[in-house]
Amino acid sequence: MILTKPPGSLGRLEEISVQLAGIFANPRPVIRDKAVIVAAGDHGVVAQGVTGYPQAVTAQMVRNFLEGGAAISVMARLGGVRQIVVDAGIASARFPDHPGLRTVRVGSGTADMSQGPAMSREQAVRCLEAGMTLAREVAASGVDLIATGDMGIGNTTPSSAIAATITGRPPTETTGEGTGRSSEELRRKTAVVAKALEVNAPDGLDPIDVLAKIGGFEIGVLAGVMLGAASERRAVVLDGFISGAAALIAYGLNPAVRDYLIASHRSAEKGHREVLAHIRLDPLLELAMRLGEGTGAVLAMGIIEAAAACLGQMATFDEAGVSDRPTEGAVEEGAGG
Amino acid sequence: MILTKPPGSLGRLEEISVQLAGIFANPRPVIRDKAVIVAAGDHGVVAQGVTGYPQAVTAQMVRNFLEGGAAISVMARLGGVRQIVVDAGIASARFPDHPGLRTVRVGSGTADMSQGPAMSREQAVRCLEAGMTLAREVAASGVDLIATGDMGIGNTTPSSAIAATITGRPPTETTGEGTGRSSEELRRKTAVVAKALEVNAPDGLDPIDVLAKIGGFEIGVLAGVMLGAASERRAVVLDGFISGAAALIAYGLNPAVRDYLIASHRSAEKGHREVLAHIRLDPLLELAMRLGEGTGAVLAMGIIEAAAACLGQMATFDEAGVSDRPTEGAVEEGAGG
Repeated sequence: MILTKPPGSLGRLEEISVQLAGIFANPRPVIRDKAVIVAAGDHGVVAQGVTGYPQAVTAQMVRNFLEGGAAISVMARLGGVRQIVVDAGIASARFPDHPGLRTVRVGSGTADMSQGPAMSREQAVRCLEAGMTLAREVAASGVDLIATGDMGIGNTTPSSAIAATITGRPPTETTGEGTGRSSEELRRKTAVVAKALEVNAPDGLDPIDVLAKIGGFEIGVLAGVMLGAASERRAVVLDGFISGAAALIAYGLNPAVRDYLIASHRSAEKGHREVLAHIRLDPLLELAMRLGEGTGAVLAMGIIEAAAACLGQMATFDEAGVSDRPTEGAVEEGAGG
Repeated sequence: MILTKPPGSLGRLEEISVQLAGIFANPRPVIRDKAVIVAAGDHGVVAQGVTGYPQAVTAQMVRNFLEGGAAISVMARLGGVRQIVVDAGIASARFPDHPGLRTVRVGSGTADMSQGPAMSREQAVRCLEAGMTLAREVAASGVDLIATGDMGIGNTTPSSAIAATITGRPPTETTGEGTGRSSEELRRKTAVVAKALEVNAPDGLDPIDVLAKIGGFEIGVLAGVMLGAASERRAVVLDGFISGAAALIAYGLNPAVRDYLIASHRSAEKGHREVLAHIRLDPLLELAMRLGEGTGAVLAMGIIEAAAACLGQMATFDEAGVSDRPTEGAVEEGAGG
């Protein structure tokens, strides 16, 4: 099957199309439905002043998601992507029933990881299980492409701690400014990450220990989503740094999950580079985004769909009656050809 | 108007949304319809063996576009983008009437630019005029975002010559492998570009002279499309190297056109870097694509639409009842906020 284009000329779209063909076990992959799972949780570590936004914003933004006014809601609507919001463990809020909201609530916000473990090991396991269950349900409903997104005031702080523990880099290299904007805020946050590592001594070779001691409920749910999606042969489109921290947990639990992951973008958040390097993922986009919510992932879905559509729908040279290069004898088959 | 996201967190999408707001003179820009104009032409310089594909492929691929089997057709369909194919001057073919085909036919392929001018000055002007007329019609039909695309066996060769002339770089730095794959092909092509410059001595300060002597019909039409779209305050999404060569002509004729241009991607074709640097455009994507047809431009349209939609549809902090940062006093307004 040689498609009507010079071999290799679709660049990275060809890699992606080949990856999708493998995941779906279909040489002409079809993406039926798309969803973004936006997991939200709160973080006790905000007591240490690691972010300027009040914790109440996590719940307020979840309402904004459900009302369709957030960046992810706008992008998901535009791209025909189902938005599924998960209350993985928001501090205090209860939300009215909503078809787009899934209530997991492993806790009412984590404990302050700079003083002790963020959650119990049992809670960490519950996050993972809830994410796996959700991914399997979403897959069963016909979704082939699952984007991960997050919301949680303060959640770049546990993500930096996870990245430091699993990649082995020092906190100074995995801690960025998040939504903060002053160098003083960054210094304080880096010190908090270092303290959380010292107090908890998480075992980088035991991802559940890492998640329990220095993680977050939404991070655990997203890691579970990745494992569940892979088990159902669905492709997972990772958003930025927080999704990356979740991917480190999932990859630590089962390195085979990597084959199902597509890195959507490289976030402006500093530690994301280390995360992607550790899992050996090369992001599709680099647009200096650092919003989270799944925005980068949903943005990249259009490119991933185009890759699948080219492999799925393009004419071959024979079908189109287009001359292939007669001057060179046998034509190599391109990655997508 | 402060939207519910940290200032600057949508990165380059915020730049794009601000550019669109300026182009459309609307602080909440709306993109109604999208089109890709794929201009096709043939090139006498193929007689010099600059490409391995036979010239007949230009016409064959135009049929493939009209039948919907080409990469651009698949991507345009997926993205809801109207595909408009222009016969700017294909060597021999005549096509049956088709609603998606516009016949301009400034000539039956250009003359061999390594032996003399590719076309007359009068033909160059006709290309530009045809492109401007088409862009104005497309704009009048409600299209706000116009992608440029090209098809023309051999057309990286005149594009390299145009890039060398207008950017002032030597042919070795503006000539890449195109669809060719051997270093021998590349050496031959670079020598042909150098010879065309020597034989014609195009005047880099007279873009119509450049287009006439070392251009192509589709390149001239695309330059006209850019000028016509800008005159109607429409945004133009540039594809890769050939669109870039056309942009050099348009920018030389009227530097104000730059404000209306969005560079979709950096092509794998070597000279494209020089072209973008000359016009000072920073591409959105870098996916090692080198297919042309408008594929990179249509791919980036999804990102541009998302940028417009965020500015147009996101809730403000007030509307959503989300707390802005109370700890820092006045909040700076982000580029998109």
